Amino acid sequence: MKILVTGAAGFIGSTFVDFALSKGCEVVGVDNFETGLREFLSSALENERFQFIECDIRNESELKKAFSASSADWIVHFAANADVRHGTEQPRRDLDFNTTGTLNVLEAARLAGTTRILFSSTGSVYGEPEIFPTPENCPFPVQTSLYAASKLAGEALISSYCVGFAFTALVYRFVSIMGPRYTHGHVFDFMKSLRSDPTKLRVLGDGKQCKSYLHIEDLMDGLWLGIQSAVDKEFQIYNIGHEDTLLVDQSIGFIAERLGIKPELEHTGGKRGWIGDSPRIQLDASKLKLLGWAPKHSLRKAVEDTVDYLKEHPSLFEART
Amino acid sequence: MKILVTGAAGFIGSTFVDFALSKGCEVVGVDNFETGLREFLSSALENERFQFIECDIRNESELKKAFSASSADWIVHFAANADVRHGTEQPRRDLDFNTTGTLNVLEAARLAGTTRILFSSTGSVYGEPEIFPTPENCPFPVQTSLYAASKLAGEALISSYCVGFAFTALVYRFVSIMGPRYTHGHVFDFMKSLRSDPTKLRVLGDGKQCKSYLHIEDLMDGLWLGIQSAVDKEFQIYNIGHEDTLLVDQSIGFIAERLGIKPELEHTGGKRGWIGDSPRIQLDASKLKLLGWAPKHSLRKAVEDTVDYLKEHPSLFEART
Repeated sequence: MKILVTGAAGFIGSTFVDFALSKGCEVVGVDNFETGLREFLSSALENERFQFIECDIRNESELKKAFSASSADWIVHFAANADVRHGTEQPRRDLDFNTTGTLNVLEAARLAGTTRILFSSTGSVYGEPEIFPTPENCPFPVQTSLYAASKLAGEALISSYCVGFAFTALVYRFVSIMGPRYTHGHVFDFMKSLRSDPTKLRVLGDGKQCKSYLHIEDLMDGLWLGIQSAVDKEFQIYNIGHEDTLLVDQSIGFIAERLGIKPELEHTGGKRGWIGDSPRIQLDASKLKLLGWAPKHSLRKAVEDTVDYLKEHPSLFEART
Repeated sequence: MKILVTGAAGFIGSTFVDFALSKGCEVVGVDNFETGLREFLSSALENERFQFIECDIRNESELKKAFSASSADWIVHFAANADVRHGTEQPRRDLDFNTTGTLNVLEAARLAGTTRILFSSTGSVYGEPEIFPTPENCPFPVQTSLYAASKLAGEALISSYCVGFAFTALVYRFVSIMGPRYTHGHVFDFMKSLRSDPTKLRVLGDGKQCKSYLHIEDLMDGLWLGIQSAVDKEFQIYNIGHEDTLLVDQSIGFIAERLGIKPELEHTGGKRGWIGDSPRIQLDASKLKLLGWAPKHSLRKAVEDTVDYLKEHPSLFEART
């Protein structure tokens, strides 16, 4: 099987590249290195089954060339603007990457004759749901962030390509993913802050936001299972996340303990850490579990592996501002 | 009250312009005349409370100028690519007009300090629902057309502007609208075909597709009621459609009877008339009815008024190919 991975140099993308190579696949990676890192692909680049093409998904003509040259069986589309917090500062960015970029990917795939696609969507599309854990077919939610809106539009485009062009598609609604190569999110932000002052930590919101996470190894298993189980011309949506949740303050507790420090917490207050923050995220992953999936790692282990990785790679804190 | 209307020269837009002027509003109309017609604004242009600005919503800088100059209280955003049937032929067109165009409108509104918006979305966002009549909070549906996907993305952008920028928004999910100035849709297509040969009619699908419609006068009442009832900083979604439905063949029966002809029907077969066609549309408009809305015209009257209008304006068939 040949898989083309967009966002191949990112945290999740590069891990998936290595995972797919370990399963014997041929892999073509595409990335623009805006947030992805070349070092994440160092192992893959030594594998003769891996090919890399530097390309931005916003560049439609380059993307078409890359896809046509690849003749892949599957597109695994991770490339995205992944920062949910800055939507109101850069309203066009989410749409450019996550919606128009996804349309570019679909068109490039269609023209290249590749009609199977896996898409990384987000549990944020549920906005502030009334049902917990939230299933895929919960009441039609209201969107609360540009990020989620742009991802939902991406889902919808993919779904309409299934109807209009007989695509096969898997949409995964991710919770926050943690583990090695994690370079973005609350553990990163907290550790960066604690590096400059380990005695105190400013926390956005009241610290009681209840969130779901997942270890990247469990994510890989879930994505792979979907690809193995995919039925031609079907469109499937799967929630993927641990059934357990962590309060933001609990998560900080695990980080501090692993670092051997006891910072004083300063909460900025309010139920939401930022505009569009969801005070509670807990996805119902029963549908994916019916395929035989179950997370192997606890959320504590996910936090600890992330902390350990970032401790071993302090240069990441310099690279990211 | 000052209202800026996008798509002001279209069927629905121009009718709303006249309606708002009749209510004493100041109205600024924006249109690119790609599908809109100057003659629809002839009455409005004689009113000193009306101003027209020729502008394409895809042109962000022109749009910002138009919005800033207007200082409107409300944006009523009708401008769209409204043909659900050609999504697979021109996949980027829906996204350019309905999603990116809506983001342009939102940004122009935000910069102009106008934070109230009414958006014309579509019942097509329900895809092929399991619940009839379909309420706004039915189970999270799967999208079946690029058109609906692009409109849902527009809804989501608006919703996230409510959260992020304290916008007030009304999203209406329309069924097919009929009545005077109707220039687009099945009645138009059937009448055009019957003009060249009144003895037979080719019907896409099996003719049993069950659809909901609404007379444009009832639409105006429903939109106006929403504007009157809007609560600052709230985001509301309303279905708007008649509770009655018509089979495609019933609709053809009304058209033929009004024209005094008896064409032989040739059905192309299949439950769907085109890719992404929904075999059954019936929206639950209970939420809007709670505000006091109820349609005054039957669906038969809606079809007949449309037929009469098109009979009186045969030049429309020449203008539209």
